[in-house]
Amino acid sequence: MIRHALLTLGWILWSALAAHAVEPLSSWNDGASRRAIIAFVKKVTDEKGGSFVPPSERIAVFDNDGTLWPENPVPFQISFTIDELKRRLPDHPEWKSDKDIQAALAGDLTPLLLEHYKGLFYIIFVAGTGMTSGEFDQNVRRWFATAIHPRFKKTYDRLAYQPMQEVLSYLRANGFKTYIVSGGGLDFMRVFSERVYGVVPEHVLGSRTDVVYELREDGPVLLKTTNHPFVDDGPGKPESIHQFIGRRPIAAFGNSDGDKEMLEYTTIGNPFPSLGLIVHHTDAEREYVYDAKPRSSGKLVTALADAPQRGWVVVDMRNDWRSIFSE
Amino acid sequence: MIRHALLTLGWILWSALAAHAVEPLSSWNDGASRRAIIAFVKKVTDEKGGSFVPPSERIAVFDNDGTLWPENPVPFQISFTIDELKRRLPDHPEWKSDKDIQAALAGDLTPLLLEHYKGLFYIIFVAGTGMTSGEFDQNVRRWFATAIHPRFKKTYDRLAYQPMQEVLSYLRANGFKTYIVSGGGLDFMRVFSERVYGVVPEHVLGSRTDVVYELREDGPVLLKTTNHPFVDDGPGKPESIHQFIGRRPIAAFGNSDGDKEMLEYTTIGNPFPSLGLIVHHTDAEREYVYDAKPRSSGKLVTALADAPQRGWVVVDMRNDWRSIFSE
Repeated sequence: MIRHALLTLGWILWSALAAHAVEPLSSWNDGASRRAIIAFVKKVTDEKGGSFVPPSERIAVFDNDGTLWPENPVPFQISFTIDELKRRLPDHPEWKSDKDIQAALAGDLTPLLLEHYKGLFYIIFVAGTGMTSGEFDQNVRRWFATAIHPRFKKTYDRLAYQPMQEVLSYLRANGFKTYIVSGGGLDFMRVFSERVYGVVPEHVLGSRTDVVYELREDGPVLLKTTNHPFVDDGPGKPESIHQFIGRRPIAAFGNSDGDKEMLEYTTIGNPFPSLGLIVHHTDAEREYVYDAKPRSSGKLVTALADAPQRGWVVVDMRNDWRSIFSE
Repeated sequence: MIRHALLTLGWILWSALAAHAVEPLSSWNDGASRRAIIAFVKKVTDEKGGSFVPPSERIAVFDNDGTLWPENPVPFQISFTIDELKRRLPDHPEWKSDKDIQAALAGDLTPLLLEHYKGLFYIIFVAGTGMTSGEFDQNVRRWFATAIHPRFKKTYDRLAYQPMQEVLSYLRANGFKTYIVSGGGLDFMRVFSERVYGVVPEHVLGSRTDVVYELREDGPVLLKTTNHPFVDDGPGKPESIHQFIGRRPIAAFGNSDGDKEMLEYTTIGNPFPSLGLIVHHTDAEREYVYDAKPRSSGKLVTALADAPQRGWVVVDMRNDWRSIFSE
């Protein structure tokens, strides 16, 4: 009798623990944002419901900077780029007369933000050129192992948002393929995407330039060039999605006006049910507050204004997220 | 006793049938080519062996024209392109003074093959521009439903090589991701790749031009342009693989000199075991014979010469393939 009671008690405890363990999105407060994500996933995975979406069509796209990790005080790749320009400066005397590079080295990004960030992408592409893709990978790896975020005092790869990590895992557990579609460099992001986010290299889309194949004595290489720069931001996002994936996503996650077209492409006139979500940076204490603030990365004005009519979920970081970073 | 004997007999029969059913590559004669493919797959999937490759790294790339289906008398997309140019000619009086288009309409492809097929890709891109990606899809679908191959008297989508279909399935059953990496148009191939080969759209790489995003009254569209043509052939293949997949394949299947760089990139200095394979067209009776023949699609000279030193398997279609097409 006692043995039976103990077994029953054990069963109840175990069930409670198991239920707790599989509770999705546990770093989210139980508000409208969390509920909208869960309701969407339940709807498209319910084979008996009228909104079922076959697994092959469950494509979810995520912006990176500002959506999966911070983009302040500057996007992490800009910190990397400035550090790389400094490191390689002795070998490049011609950079002394390059006004964009000089502005970056002086820490003055303002002129680089003109004309749709033209100067910014220029220095990103310059810092990643004149080498093979393998050499670039090593530079990125070395930087992530040593560089420290000025405010959070950690290596940059330890600053992924815990609530968004949970969204990535939750979607994959429900048969979604999770893609990153970001203004960040394609080759830059692929170095850490699998380790940090569980997103495999072939599911990463980003800004890019041509590479050139060469068969050398010690094997084939791909040389990075500055030819044909493609900026994977704004309309570039649905354009890249078409070229790389060839299907319309059914879920899109962003945080800035640069994600507006990707959100539109995902949610307007989609034959399948869809979800659009914007991470709104509202937490000065634990992270940052910005949207319309001039000259900040991640300007969010037009996409935020469109959100109500489009039915996009707007996440209030301060109130929706129980914790910000994984610990 | 009799019942037991019958059951035993049934079991033996069932086992024999089951074993037969899972026998891979059944349209291949049991020669060196078939054995090389099976030995490679067994080696990289044997967790206890020293050559095990984790599933995430099992990327296999396939050329399409001449490797997965015929490319004679001309690549199928050329037949489509000429039919499309004819169909749309009344709306494009400016084509009357375009010498490449006129040559194509007259059935004279010779001038289009100069300068690395420059004219050929030009007419392909022209026939696919000035419309949305959705409209182009419909044109391709309609063509496949009606156009008939001049020699085999079937719709083109019924001409996949049965032995290669078996290779695709066999690799996928062993945890490989199968990609098409072809000179054919990206948008063209994605219309049929899943239905014909079981290759999902996001695993198709091909020749392409820029698309332009536009939000219209009835929803978002992608307009096809002729800007930035990228020819996914020769060195373009490893370049595309780097941009789209971001990993080196461990198996590559081709049939012409345009696949040489993809075969090199897959097999030279790869940290994992690798397989390179060339389909050699040697069967005039059931298909075609060509390699060094001038002006044929699918010239195979330098890649064939390199095969022995590179260890690439050369498939002799006439002797290695029991059947050519699926029935």
